[in-house]
Order: sequence, then C-alpha cells, then structure tokens
Amino acid sequence: MAKAITLLESTRTDHRHQADELLTALLPHTGSAFRLGISGVPGVGKSTFIEALGLYLIKHRHRVAVLAVDPSSSVSGGSILGDKTRMELLSMRQEAYIRPSPSSCNLGGVAEKTREAMLVCEAAGYDVVIVETVGVGQSETAVSSMTDMFVLLQLPNAGDELQAIKKGVMELADLVAINKADLNPDAAMRAQLQITSSLRLLGLHGNSDNAHHNEAFWHPQVIQISALQGTGVAAFWSKVLEFQALQTGNGKWQARRQNQALAWMWERIDAGLKQAFRQHPSVQALLPQLTQDVLQGRLAASTAARNMLLAQTQ
Amino acid sequence: MAKAITLLESTRTDHRHQADELLTALLPHTGSAFRLGISGVPGVGKSTFIEALGLYLIKHRHRVAVLAVDPSSSVSGGSILGDKTRMELLSMRQEAYIRPSPSSCNLGGVAEKTREAMLVCEAAGYDVVIVETVGVGQSETAVSSMTDMFVLLQLPNAGDELQAIKKGVMELADLVAINKADLNPDAAMRAQLQITSSLRLLGLHGNSDNAHHNEAFWHPQVIQISALQGTGVAAFWSKVLEFQALQTGNGKWQARRQNQALAWMWERIDAGLKQAFRQHPSVQALLPQLTQDVLQGRLAASTAARNMLLAQTQ
Repeated sequence: MAKAITLLESTRTDHRHQADELLTALLPHTGSAFRLGISGVPGVGKSTFIEALGLYLIKHRHRVAVLAVDPSSSVSGGSILGDKTRMELLSMRQEAYIRPSPSSCNLGGVAEKTREAMLVCEAAGYDVVIVETVGVGQSETAVSSMTDMFVLLQLPNAGDELQAIKKGVMELADLVAINKADLNPDAAMRAQLQITSSLRLLGLHGNSDNAHHNEAFWHPQVIQISALQGTGVAAFWSKVLEFQALQTGNGKWQARRQNQALAWMWERIDAGLKQAFRQHPSVQALLPQLTQDVLQGRLAASTAARNMLLAQTQ
Repeated sequence: MAKAITLLESTRTDHRHQADELLTALLPHTGSAFRLGISGVPGVGKSTFIEALGLYLIKHRHRVAVLAVDPSSSVSGGSILGDKTRMELLSMRQEAYIRPSPSSCNLGGVAEKTREAMLVCEAAGYDVVIVETVGVGQSETAVSSMTDMFVLLQLPNAGDELQAIKKGVMELADLVAINKADLNPDAAMRAQLQITSSLRLLGLHGNSDNAHHNEAFWHPQVIQISALQGTGVAAFWSKVLEFQALQTGNGKWQARRQNQALAWMWERIDAGLKQAFRQHPSVQALLPQLTQDVLQGRLAASTAARNMLLAQTQ
C-alpha cells in the first residue's frame, strides 16, 4: 500500500502513467469507506482526538486510515500533521494506517495526492478514512471537498474573547466539536451557544451552489468533548453516524461525492491549463511587463488578459 | 458615454479591439472615484436607499453613477436592478447616471462589462460609483472584488427568526445597514446585536488571502437606517467617509485596488483558457464520456483531467 501511494505521489512522467493505470484498476474497489475531514488550529488537540477516535473505532471493528493535508509541509520539509510519533498508540495497531502529508509546492498538488492516497486506503479495506488539516490558507476547503463530513475542532473561549475562526471555515462545518471542554465548562458552554447562534445566522438560506449540506435535513451542530479525558468520543461518533444515515437515506451522500468528483476534475483541468499558460514562451515574455502595467494602472486588467490569451495561441 | 459603454459591451471582435484601445486611452483619467458596492435581497429597499443616497450626494456636490450587476438579466432579458423607473427622482438629475445590468450568459461577462463601464463613468467625471447587486449566485463576490467598500443591506428580523444571510456574503461586508429599522425598532436592535456578534466571531483572525479588510484598522460595523424616512443616510455616508479615510491613510485603498486588478486579470485569463479548452475538438469529443465515467466512478477525476489536457495539446 505504501508503495502504491509512493507511486501516486511521484512526479516522474512514466510513473504518472503507471499511477493512472493503477488508479483506474483500484477504482471499482473504492468508495465504500466513510470519509471524515477534521480541522482545527494547532493546539486544539487534533492528534489526541484522532487517536482517541481511531482507537474507539478499532474497538468497534473498523479499520482506520489517517491522512493529512498540510500545505506547509513543502516549506518545512516535513509535515506537522499525521505524524506517527504524535499518535503512538494508534500507530502501533495493525488496524490503523497513518500517513503524513505529501509534500508539494502547492495545495492543489497536496490535495490531489491525498485524494489518490484515500482511494488506495479504501481499496486496501480501510472503512473509515480520516483526513486532517490545519488551518492554513485554503486547506479546509480542499479537505471539505474530498470528505463526506467536515468537522471543525474548537477550543473553549478564554475569558470573554470570542474564539478566532478563519473566514469561510465555519460555513464548511457539518459539526463543530469544542475540545478540552473539561478545562473550562463555563467557557465551553458560552462557546457552544455563540457558535450555534452564528451557524444559524449563516446557514438559514444556504446557497445551493456552494452549500454542501441541505439545512432541511441536517443543521450543523455543536458538541462538547474532551479528547484527553476520552469523554465525548462515543457521542461524537454517534453524531457522525446520525449524519451519515441521513445523508445516505436521502441520496445526499451520493450527490455530494459526484459533485466533488466533477468539481475536482475541473479544478485539475484549470490548474493544468494555467500551468501550460504560465510556461508558454510568449506569455513568459509578456507577463512581467503586463502585470506591472496593470498594477500601475496603465492597462486595464481585462485588456492585459486578452493580450496574453491571444499571444498564447500564436 | 452611453456610446462608449455600448461599444465596451459589444461582443463583435472588431468592436472588442476598438474597445481595448478606448479603455487604454481612458485609463489615465480613471481611478479617483470612490467605488461603493451595495447588496441585499429583493425587497430590502436597495433602490429606495440608493436613490436617497444619490440625492444626498448630489446635494453635497458629488456626481453619482449607479451600475448594476445582475446575472439574472440574461435569463429574463431585462434587469431587475438599476432600473431608471425605480429611481425616478435620481434619474432626472443631470449629476446622476444610471445604467441597468449588462446582459450576458455568465457572471464573469456581466462583471467584466460592469468593471469597464465603471472606468468610463470615472473618466466622465463621476466621483462616486455605486455598483448594486442582488443576492444571486456569486454576484456579491464579484461586486465586492470591484469596489472599495462593500455594504450589505439587511431587513430587521421578523419575530425571533434570524435573518437569512447567504453563505459567505456576511464576510464580504465592510458595513451592514439594517434598513426599514423604523418599522420594527425592537427587531432592528436585535438584528444589529446578532449581526455584530457574528461579524466579530467570523472576523477576529481574518485569513489574509481573502480578507479584504484589516481588522486592526476597520472592524465591520452594523448601523440602522430607514431609506424611506430618509433617516440614517447622512450617518451612513459618514461611516463611508470614515472607512475611506482609514483606507487611504494606511495604503489599504491602493493595495485593495491593485489586488483587485491582478485578481481580475487572472480571472479573465482563467475564463479564456477554459473557454478555449471547452471549444477544442478533441476535448469536445472526450468530455461527455469522461464526465460520465467520473460520475459513475469508473475513472478517477484527476485521470480524466489529465487525459483531456493531453488531448488538447495534440
């Protein structure tokens, strides 16, 4: 399995061809796992929670794969997520597979490799795939768009300050779990009320274009947990099962996956088109000067775009 | 001026060439106007408010252009926004210019034409350009990304129900104005508190990638107005001036415009690349089948994307 994932992560052209053949062969054996996305800022206790959840799931006869999407891994050379040393008990179990984030120069590349690794895990019989990410750039959006359910871990508020939440992330959450609730029960309760109220304000009339949950059948919920104390893991999983049952029951699960697959195809097409554009000699000759012209207000942005598009075709 | 805008809106290739020359000639005379985006659901009172604001601004020696971004106009054949008959008093003033939404088959096209019309208005000496939009699809994002300040009009809550807000829109707002506040002062006050609290929850640690306001210098505010009674228009405009002064003072204004111009250039490049891709014979031959293969789970999305990208180059 590790070999297959390494092949998929290779950037060599001949490997890429083999990788595509492998993917196509694996595909019929994928898709039956539940894909769970988990995000939260550093320090929120993601590893501790995922380890507790993983051990709980193994006890209930699941096999669990943990993958990570960490765009910072290409900078640091190593990932801060999905690290086996952070999940010692889980990594010793043969029912678990933990893989750190692939390194790549951009989030699109990391996301692509993680999606493909997820398919390998599914073909290998892991029936719960957890994809974790840290709040960096657009990584939550990427993880949300490759999973069946997206969970945001939060800390209880310290004092009266509201919890910091990155723009756009709250709206992706199917479930918000306030971790370390035992440390400050009052703050955890306040956080739960505030987040519940904001989710209601944000979610009432979702835009069907980008809303991935239908409010009529699932309203994002907020629960309290303590990963360290091991409390709330069972309650958490029962929320996941409730969500899963609703999704499967009304066809949302299938629809979400189909939408994700098509969106991903077009995202990869867009990325490929843009890469070819940037590498075209005529574009490379024009881009620096036209960019400056646009920044200095000497050329309209749309005119600059048209000039370069024309240059690429000639 | 109307002729220039009509030329810019033409889809004929020779017109497009003239239009680009015109744009480049006008560009040095543009950019000094204040660009104000206003959004809100139908019935919130946008026309009444914009008319009241426009008349107020004319009284204070401004010249006001009102443009509209309405993606639905291509469906209905006519725009529900920027309609002169809805702003009778304002449209009779020679210091005002009102233009309905251009019609186009997509939002990108509508947005492009509106951006270019904005430049014509600025070159013609209008020093406040108001771009209004209705909550359809991604139109708020488009308007927010072409204006210096984005205002969301809201209705006071009816009863205890929270106001419906489309996902992602609240986070674009530099200012939220609760209109028709006089009709239900208690509800307006509750709405103001709820929205203020949610904006704080959403905005504390903005992501510098997509946050267009720096929380350190401007925190989105919520005010009450009544466009019909004419109350709050002066207070509204003084908030705008406060925001503008802060933006200009710390260089945010210039930075926001430069970011907008570059983002717009790349958005137009992306749209152009995608259009050429879709029109390529090999892609047209492959796309329907590969789309089905991806939807049915027979082919990985990334493999399908690679196949078509390869086909386009051959």
